[in-house]
Amino acid sequence: MFAPRAVALVGASGDEAKNTSRPQRYLLKHGYAGSIAPINPSRSEISGLACYKNLIDVPYPVDHAFIMVGDVEGAVEDCGRKGVPVASIFSDGFADAGEAGMARQRRVVTRARELGVRLLGPNSMGMINLTGGVALSVNAILEMDGPPRGGTSLVSKSGTRLGTILSRGAARGLGFSKLVSVGNESDLGVGELVELLAADSETRSILLFLETVRDAERLAAGARAAHAAGKPVVAYKLGRSKLGERLARSHTGALAGEDAALDAYFRDCGIARVDLLETLIEIGPLLAGRKPPDLGPVARAPRVAVVTTTGGGAAAVVDRLGTFGIETASPDGSAPIIDLTMGKRAAGYGAVVGELLDFPGCDAVLAVVGSSAQFHPQHAVEPILRAKPSAKPLAVFMTPQADQSLALLAQAGIAAFRTPEACADALHAYFSWKSPRTPPAGGAPEWPEGVASEGRLTEAQALAVFAAAGVPVVASAVAKAPHYAHELSYPVALKILDAAVAHKSEVGGVALGIASRQEFEARVRQLAKDGAPLLVQRMETGLAEAIVGYREDPVVGPLVLVGAGGILAELYNDVVLRLAPVTEAEALEMVGRVKGFAVLRGYRGLPRGDLQALARAVAATSRLALLAGRPLREAESNPVIVRRQGVVAVDALAVLKEE
Amino acid sequence: MFAPRAVALVGASGDEAKNTSRPQRYLLKHGYAGSIAPINPSRSEISGLACYKNLIDVPYPVDHAFIMVGDVEGAVEDCGRKGVPVASIFSDGFADAGEAGMARQRRVVTRARELGVRLLGPNSMGMINLTGGVALSVNAILEMDGPPRGGTSLVSKSGTRLGTILSRGAARGLGFSKLVSVGNESDLGVGELVELLAADSETRSILLFLETVRDAERLAAGARAAHAAGKPVVAYKLGRSKLGERLARSHTGALAGEDAALDAYFRDCGIARVDLLETLIEIGPLLAGRKPPDLGPVARAPRVAVVTTTGGGAAAVVDRLGTFGIETASPDGSAPIIDLTMGKRAAGYGAVVGELLDFPGCDAVLAVVGSSAQFHPQHAVEPILRAKPSAKPLAVFMTPQADQSLALLAQAGIAAFRTPEACADALHAYFSWKSPRTPPAGGAPEWPEGVASEGRLTEAQALAVFAAAGVPVVASAVAKAPHYAHELSYPVALKILDAAVAHKSEVGGVALGIASRQEFEARVRQLAKDGAPLLVQRMETGLAEAIVGYREDPVVGPLVLVGAGGILAELYNDVVLRLAPVTEAEALEMVGRVKGFAVLRGYRGLPRGDLQALARAVAATSRLALLAGRPLREAESNPVIVRRQGVVAVDALAVLKEE
Repeated sequence: MFAPRAVALVGASGDEAKNTSRPQRYLLKHGYAGSIAPINPSRSEISGLACYKNLIDVPYPVDHAFIMVGDVEGAVEDCGRKGVPVASIFSDGFADAGEAGMARQRRVVTRARELGVRLLGPNSMGMINLTGGVALSVNAILEMDGPPRGGTSLVSKSGTRLGTILSRGAARGLGFSKLVSVGNESDLGVGELVELLAADSETRSILLFLETVRDAERLAAGARAAHAAGKPVVAYKLGRSKLGERLARSHTGALAGEDAALDAYFRDCGIARVDLLETLIEIGPLLAGRKPPDLGPVARAPRVAVVTTTGGGAAAVVDRLGTFGIETASPDGSAPIIDLTMGKRAAGYGAVVGELLDFPGCDAVLAVVGSSAQFHPQHAVEPILRAKPSAKPLAVFMTPQADQSLALLAQAGIAAFRTPEACADALHAYFSWKSPRTPPAGGAPEWPEGVASEGRLTEAQALAVFAAAGVPVVASAVAKAPHYAHELSYPVALKILDAAVAHKSEVGGVALGIASRQEFEARVRQLAKDGAPLLVQRMETGLAEAIVGYREDPVVGPLVLVGAGGILAELYNDVVLRLAPVTEAEALEMVGRVKGFAVLRGYRGLPRGDLQALARAVAATSRLALLAGRPLREAESNPVIVRRQGVVAVDALAVLKEE
Repeated sequence: MFAPRAVALVGASGDEAKNTSRPQRYLLKHGYAGSIAPINPSRSEISGLACYKNLIDVPYPVDHAFIMVGDVEGAVEDCGRKGVPVASIFSDGFADAGEAGMARQRRVVTRARELGVRLLGPNSMGMINLTGGVALSVNAILEMDGPPRGGTSLVSKSGTRLGTILSRGAARGLGFSKLVSVGNESDLGVGELVELLAADSETRSILLFLETVRDAERLAAGARAAHAAGKPVVAYKLGRSKLGERLARSHTGALAGEDAALDAYFRDCGIARVDLLETLIEIGPLLAGRKPPDLGPVARAPRVAVVTTTGGGAAAVVDRLGTFGIETASPDGSAPIIDLTMGKRAAGYGAVVGELLDFPGCDAVLAVVGSSAQFHPQHAVEPILRAKPSAKPLAVFMTPQADQSLALLAQAGIAAFRTPEACADALHAYFSWKSPRTPPAGGAPEWPEGVASEGRLTEAQALAVFAAAGVPVVASAVAKAPHYAHELSYPVALKILDAAVAHKSEVGGVALGIASRQEFEARVRQLAKDGAPLLVQRMETGLAEAIVGYREDPVVGPLVLVGAGGILAELYNDVVLRLAPVTEAEALEMVGRVKGFAVLRGYRGLPRGDLQALARAVAATSRLALLAGRPLREAESNPVIVRRQGVVAVDALAVLKEE
């Protein structure tokens, strides 16, 4: 894959205007030491190299074939006959080209498996191994001279973005090891490549440029392997907005998945996520060799100590850090930042950086350098270079255009940032970075007796599912014609019991606060159509409402969510999502992130709600993920009423996969 | 100011290690054609120029003095005696240095006015007039060789940031005309400088780097003048987060003002605001020569047409645009973007750009260029250069490192962006940009009879203020001991009437839903301490609650706000703020931006509320800004109950300035 002793270029061309001429040129330009076999039936020589009519004719073993012809099927057959273990396919017209292309791709992969050939692509721009000198790619970025080599590797959905990141990194002295364009991921996917890079001795940190995640389990495994090897994995993923999500879907032909679900997924498997593209390029040295930060069991606000030669320059980063809830700290505790503007800097900049790296009151150090970075690196940049290496992350932001200083810092393995926003984004990504999570052990919940695991569930059945999982639910009874008898004490609520109606109150199917048998009977006459049974529930009151839910995301799998109840969750997107199942402690952390629960935390003298009980209900709901065969597509209780003591689910909805 | 025929450098030094040696060196380096007079009592010559003991001794008229000595007072006296009309003060120790410094600054300004000397600074790094060849500054960025000249001018609070913007702009070929570091703004402020630049024939667009706004009226006047002259004004302001706000305050010694209030202010006076620092540098050509966009009276979502040579590269910008609510559009209406990836590009890129600029279905065009931008500008960059100039904005994003292509586009006056995020931020800033607003005419509201305009106001008096302004308020009566008689029909609400208690319900001072005289009397016994009068109100119900408020911001002046009622405004920051007064139409636009009012717009089949009546109440409240002498510091009604027909304010609070 990464270090072939010989490569074959299937469909090579000698015409420099054609993309198919590039791999040969780039391999030679970037110092490939192995053998290159161009394959083209109509040529006997291409740019000085012997050309073969067919892969089979190559007189030596080939480790990696690069396929650029329309007849991919034939080329793969040849790889099989020749015993080529890996083929990268540049050609498109597969999963990127509708249903027919998708079927074609499946056929090629099936055949390649039979032949024992692993595939990268189709629709891949290839692979660049800079530290090994193998530029096996059509990416025009390889026209550049000698990009710096380093310990960062990249796996990119988009071949173009591979060029973006390589060229931009090179311009500021950031070196790379391996860069892979995965294309359609028909066989070798992002997850397996991360596993390979986790085991690669030249790779220190792994960057991912993603449009979606195709094999969440494999990538999670790769991320865990990388974590175990002490290599951070950082992702930039498109699809933050609905528009971007739609575009990613149309562009990749894959399910995009919901961005918030992918956020939960990245967090779960220990992948740091950045928001800005430049952060992905620049963050490597900030995380390399480090573990996710430990901010205590109930995460406190992270603290950054700041030293600067320009007040305004530091403020631009600090302002941004503030929007992420990150705080500043300094040893003397008074000023938020240490400002060594003009005159004071030659004396103490390096000493201050060292002092802050040793200062136990901060979790990271930010060093900001003003105009001296451009023409007088001796003032502040060189003292930073001499700073004693520390387990504490050090981020440098330089306010002017200062390519040389950026390169000096990059060579020293110190994280340096071109923009205040990328600098703040990187520190935020670092502080949000978690070790891969071990899901809690423990048994699966019961499936409620008498409830089928296919078909549509009524509210009564959905409540039974929550109750069986261990969530306290309202006392309910199904009242039936002709008398609609029940044994609940008044006041009660009355609801229609039609599994086809998801929002009963919108169709007038709910009556609340029924105070007496007499009123009950009147309501029954209004609601019960043709003697249909009705659901009677005890009226419950409390301090506030929550939504607690479970669902299976098509990309990342089972999720649990908790949010402010009623319509707040939807209007303000005030929900927190995690991969299911979660422990009670993890659920409590989720509950702590819901803004609307401020009213349950003593806001304006209001009484406090039982958030621990709510967390127990969330953890219980999350264990629906452990049901054998995972029969549920989704289950949601809205509202769960939160009281001073305890919680109670008063409404539920559950949808089976087989409905 | 900008084009002195002779300058004096007060406190000049020949020691290159000293900042005070820089202006002379930089003036010469950057081709100053006028006379330079170094002033230093202990030298007769500095680096080849005749040095004078005192400003008075200079044998020719001096147009601009640059003061770098501790004895600023003496230097200003000398300017007066010598008849120097403008002095820039680099020295610090004034408003930047606490109370005593502030007093010192006031004295210097008073004296300078007497002498007829205008001051830039103190604590200013000076002024650079690139198109006029006057580099009168200590900013080390002037070590650079021949920065490009252009039509963009900058006014910066921070001298360092002046260097940041100049150096970063220069690196991508963006040229500047004037750059001014305003320092403490003791005399010449940002507003007056914007006025000067509005009248400057070499300036086409004006950038502001701000930490706060010191003279909102003057800056508004400057922005209006610039608008009238067809010159866009764009601001980047620190203080988005509380942390940044605090830092800006400590750094400038000025009131920072609330960021949301400044947002409203910028919008009001036609200043576009950018979020990212690089956007400020790059946005000039996007707005230069253009007017704010017209998206119709009820602003629809802006539409951008996108052409690209890389799907993934375009997606990074489009994803970001989506988060701002911006949509994509294309002539054939099917694909969201026009993707001319590999192979198709040479044929049609330029033609597509031209077609999109002519396409009436879009408001702006985004052209994305992939790796060809770095080594093959003929593929896509050159066709863009040849695009016919259009009134429609054209933004170019290049995915690789492509300095030369950036410079080519900059020279052609075409907006080009280094990062997808700055590109999207710039388009968002363009679409949010408004023409300066003319506040509505119309008379001031009445001040309610019998209410004093000083002291503390009770809730009854506050309601009277709203009623007099034209807001419908709940029927109320003040009930007094011994009988607490009133003529309202039941049910009623009862409240304590103590101006000192802002949150009555938190102290148990409110009883709601009192159904009868009997219950009323029982509640009076609970609430009325020592026979204090109580406020009786008719109980009102409706569909939802709103908050409507007025307040005077110390920086930008009177503001009106509307938001979701109860605690939502605070928990979710779901409020919209504008400079007061506003028209009913403007108020309706504000109401349309409050997320929580979804429940009044037909959300999930809920009945619709009278948002027009709410807008009338907001407009009426905003006219409190027209009260003679503006006696109110703030006035807020929370909740205003919104019904199917009409609204009613049921609670009010008003605070006078003189309380």
